[in-house]
Amino acid sequence: MTTMKPTPILDSIKRPQDVAQLSYDECKALADELRYVIVDRVSKNGGHLASSLGVVDLTVALLAEFDLSTDQIVWDVGHQAYAYKLLTGRKDRFDTLRQYGGITGFPKRSESEYDVFGVGHSSTSVSAALGLLRAKKLKGDNGHVIAVIGDGAMTGGMAFEGLNDTGHFSENLTVILNDNQMSIDKNVGGLSRAFSNLRSSTGYIRAKSRVERVLLKIPLIGRPIARFLRMLKTWFRLLIRRNTPVIFEDLGFHYFGPFDGHNIALLKKKLEIAKEINGPVLIHIVTQKGKGYAPAEENPSVYHGVSPFDMEKGVQPSAKPTFTGCFSDSMVRIGKKYENVVAICAAMMTSTGLKNFRQNMKLRFFDVGIAEEHAVTMAAGMAVNGFVPVVALYSTFAQRAYDQLLHDVCLQDLHVVLALDRAGIVGADGMTHQGIYDISMMLSMPNVTLLSPCNFAELDRMLEYAVSEGKGLIAVRYPRGGQPDRLAEIPVSDGIAPRVIRDGRKVAILSLGIMCDQALEAADILSEKGISAKVIDVRCVKPVDIDSWRALLSDIDQVVTIEDGIAHAGFGTYLLSILDEAGDFPCVHDFTVLGVGDHPLVAGNRGVLLGIEGMDAKAIVAAVEKS
Amino acid sequence: MTTMKPTPILDSIKRPQDVAQLSYDECKALADELRYVIVDRVSKNGGHLASSLGVVDLTVALLAEFDLSTDQIVWDVGHQAYAYKLLTGRKDRFDTLRQYGGITGFPKRSESEYDVFGVGHSSTSVSAALGLLRAKKLKGDNGHVIAVIGDGAMTGGMAFEGLNDTGHFSENLTVILNDNQMSIDKNVGGLSRAFSNLRSSTGYIRAKSRVERVLLKIPLIGRPIARFLRMLKTWFRLLIRRNTPVIFEDLGFHYFGPFDGHNIALLKKKLEIAKEINGPVLIHIVTQKGKGYAPAEENPSVYHGVSPFDMEKGVQPSAKPTFTGCFSDSMVRIGKKYENVVAICAAMMTSTGLKNFRQNMKLRFFDVGIAEEHAVTMAAGMAVNGFVPVVALYSTFAQRAYDQLLHDVCLQDLHVVLALDRAGIVGADGMTHQGIYDISMMLSMPNVTLLSPCNFAELDRMLEYAVSEGKGLIAVRYPRGGQPDRLAEIPVSDGIAPRVIRDGRKVAILSLGIMCDQALEAADILSEKGISAKVIDVRCVKPVDIDSWRALLSDIDQVVTIEDGIAHAGFGTYLLSILDEAGDFPCVHDFTVLGVGDHPLVAGNRGVLLGIEGMDAKAIVAAVEKS
Repeated sequence: MTTMKPTPILDSIKRPQDVAQLSYDECKALADELRYVIVDRVSKNGGHLASSLGVVDLTVALLAEFDLSTDQIVWDVGHQAYAYKLLTGRKDRFDTLRQYGGITGFPKRSESEYDVFGVGHSSTSVSAALGLLRAKKLKGDNGHVIAVIGDGAMTGGMAFEGLNDTGHFSENLTVILNDNQMSIDKNVGGLSRAFSNLRSSTGYIRAKSRVERVLLKIPLIGRPIARFLRMLKTWFRLLIRRNTPVIFEDLGFHYFGPFDGHNIALLKKKLEIAKEINGPVLIHIVTQKGKGYAPAEENPSVYHGVSPFDMEKGVQPSAKPTFTGCFSDSMVRIGKKYENVVAICAAMMTSTGLKNFRQNMKLRFFDVGIAEEHAVTMAAGMAVNGFVPVVALYSTFAQRAYDQLLHDVCLQDLHVVLALDRAGIVGADGMTHQGIYDISMMLSMPNVTLLSPCNFAELDRMLEYAVSEGKGLIAVRYPRGGQPDRLAEIPVSDGIAPRVIRDGRKVAILSLGIMCDQALEAADILSEKGISAKVIDVRCVKPVDIDSWRALLSDIDQVVTIEDGIAHAGFGTYLLSILDEAGDFPCVHDFTVLGVGDHPLVAGNRGVLLGIEGMDAKAIVAAVEKS
Repeated sequence: MTTMKPTPILDSIKRPQDVAQLSYDECKALADELRYVIVDRVSKNGGHLASSLGVVDLTVALLAEFDLSTDQIVWDVGHQAYAYKLLTGRKDRFDTLRQYGGITGFPKRSESEYDVFGVGHSSTSVSAALGLLRAKKLKGDNGHVIAVIGDGAMTGGMAFEGLNDTGHFSENLTVILNDNQMSIDKNVGGLSRAFSNLRSSTGYIRAKSRVERVLLKIPLIGRPIARFLRMLKTWFRLLIRRNTPVIFEDLGFHYFGPFDGHNIALLKKKLEIAKEINGPVLIHIVTQKGKGYAPAEENPSVYHGVSPFDMEKGVQPSAKPTFTGCFSDSMVRIGKKYENVVAICAAMMTSTGLKNFRQNMKLRFFDVGIAEEHAVTMAAGMAVNGFVPVVALYSTFAQRAYDQLLHDVCLQDLHVVLALDRAGIVGADGMTHQGIYDISMMLSMPNVTLLSPCNFAELDRMLEYAVSEGKGLIAVRYPRGGQPDRLAEIPVSDGIAPRVIRDGRKVAILSLGIMCDQALEAADILSEKGISAKVIDVRCVKPVDIDSWRALLSDIDQVVTIEDGIAHAGFGTYLLSILDEAGDFPCVHDFTVLGVGDHPLVAGNRGVLLGIEGMDAKAIVAAVEKS
């Protein structure tokens, strides 16, 4: 094991306010130490590396300039908050990052008073910060509120809603746009910076206000002149930074930028100015993802979210096949076979595995940005005009498009395929990323088919079914990671009916997707105890084909269902209600539903969480033996 | 009954394409006839009047300019599409507007080939239209796609997501911004119109392109000069329309306007130009809500959505008390008593009844625009800093904030109150507005309390409970309209436990909110048949207090639940699953769940729909007698 480098300045930070006492050189050294600790710990536990490295300097500047005893910082998405965590009392526990009971990978209110607003999903920061600010204002509390949001998150409509409201009422909010796409036109970059410096210098702001104040008092003539001066300023700005978005000024913000987001001294100066301005301020900074760790600088998308890796060698490509990889291959195969298939994602081309599809069928691929709502309704539009869109979203992010799925796809009975990646327990990313709500979400929607493959071959077959035979909204949910060995060899079936994957009598275990692994293991244990249990691979969550179930459960007195979703609002409960209504299923009198309980599901290894939630083979065996 | 005025021109329109054959004078006359028919029919059936009258001229111009056999028009929200319906084959059935089996109040795909995209909720049109367009493009079909969106709907983040994607890829979409707020600065209005005329004249566009084409071919110098010319144009535009948002140009759109949206000849000219432009076009028109019917012009908000009224006298204020009115009064009372209560709505101050709260406690009232997502997360921010926000949304619109409720409020266990108006069957507005999904939505969310008052007094008490005693997310759902007579006199109870409102034995009917009315009626009928049925007012949908239920159901062998939500994914099913798990409830063996089936619920009178869905007293009696 390598010896840890010393981090003397970081060690000297006992409270976040201590950062304000550091010299400029010490701030720079602190940033270096933070980067070292982040790379070191993430290399051991995995985590979000590139984004966290990108905002180290900003974090130092923010803590140097703002006082967290009165000021509040909201991080959008939150995967970039590692430096913030290290500086706000979580250094000593930082090696428990993303482990069960450890430091979470995102801001979390219950973890620290400095995590004022928990997060995980994108584009919420402006709204949350505005709420914090309005509450402060009503209480007569003068503290500042700052939202830090990336240029990606800014494409989410909710951020626009927040900016619009903030600007309309001219609320005193500071928004920092962390732009790591380098989308600024380089030809005017130099001039732009010079102009920005001029415009955002404290002297300039004060002068402008003073001149305006005086002018506005002169009757008749004063107001038009003040207006003319403002107009002149606007022209001048447009001349200099032709390609800089004035969109924020339209929304009522004072816009400053773009600035170098790695220059701590410059950032401090700009933040100081923002504090003095009355009204909404947007500071646009440009940062480099992965800054300070060469492999991450070169390949920021590879180092966005990583599993543990060797710090010297960097991240090595994993050879282990995953459901996402299987989806990727299937989509290429299916896209080639069916020319009416199009693929849509929301800023996650690589993570959802659609990169290959794009390489093969570029015209039929659409990345709409972090905009799940738009993605789904745009898909609905394409379906109207004869295409079969496959919208690939992580289960947790599909929650953003609840109403678009219901109102735009289901009520109209349009044929849209929803590929739900990371469905079920996701592990280390924690409670905001668990894919455990999609089943409940879709049970109440009409015209929905929800499928759950237990292995790669089934995923491929179900996707093709969804595209070629399905109708309405067809969602296929599949988990993070690979297929359990025990399930790999189960052959595919045609259609979507439930099927027996291990025979037995009296007792049936109904399992969804890779939960079949736990079910089969439970059946083995039960068998040793002399109990014969039939294991059924549910495959189709909804609609329920009552005749199939009648055939499968005719000899069954006891049922245990197991799913990686919410127990009392999921498949098991739904099936129970339908079988009960049918009236001729004796098993409804001994029917146990296993799944996630009615509480947030924290971060942790999948196996650990299955145990805690009573969703493993042991829990199934206990449920069978209980009655 | 008054004799109908003749409508000769409207009668001559056999296909939408016929509008293109009309002279200018005939177009104007057609607009007058359309207005007459709309006011006449809405005065008989109720409906959305002011918005529909506002876009009559635009509708005529659109049909004169575009050919619906190849072009497609998407209406945002859709309540303004009455003229469009009259001109696209639905004139003869228009007197069935909003009735069961009749013409729906919104575009609906199953109703007409010309309703290319169904709608009801706001801000979806740009996304849908972009999907339609992209599909056309892939198929090599040259037809145009037009989205018509109001300035209100434009505040919804989803519209921004759609514009952003459209502009980024420079898609050939036409967006018509129907601005009825008159927010254009009148001082520059004249100049602005003159300039817009200049800029959007076909000659100007062509000239610009030709000059640019030539310039771009000159090496080294040509490109900078072309750029300079474009810059000059921008300055000029800024000079003239200082207060016109350039936001759309930042997003990549060609912006034209503002124009008079009631000048058919002008509109036709502008639409013709839009057709010639390659790339995204936004045409900004200014219209008057209620145009052509004096009472609606004077009071557009009163005439937004109306019940049947006397055409001569206009809409008379209704004296009938409603749940919304009760909420309105309660909020004033509660707001005065608890200084930490704030009220938030999404562009529906009057409809949600918060106007009174605003009049009394202006600083604690926030209208965020049509932005439900932002409303909920902003509320979460206020909760963090010590306030108790009451967010008032219609049940159907709360669907837009699913993830904000789950991710921002529930996972963080923040104390936010959600007032869900129009919960349950809403009647004439139809399938996009039914408030039948909120129960299912919230059953799977942790840290949720969902309450359902059966009368006004209970609503008042539950709201106070929610604000003063509750924790986490507390939603109170209440229906459209008033309290049934049978329920008005039921006294309030403290707390949130379920309670018996009519005693009986062996059989229990568990009913939610005003469904108690049907339950009591059923108990009367059963009593006449010699069956004694206990009626329980459920009050609290979630969490389930198992001890209360154990006490209430100890002498019960048979249970029928009735709720105005989705049967197999709602309260009844949830309770069944929990009682079943408890193991000591004999009634789980005879447990019937009544509610809405697994299909869209169309428009219709509440009583009619209750009958069709098997949710009335008769259905309850049948369920009891079945077993």
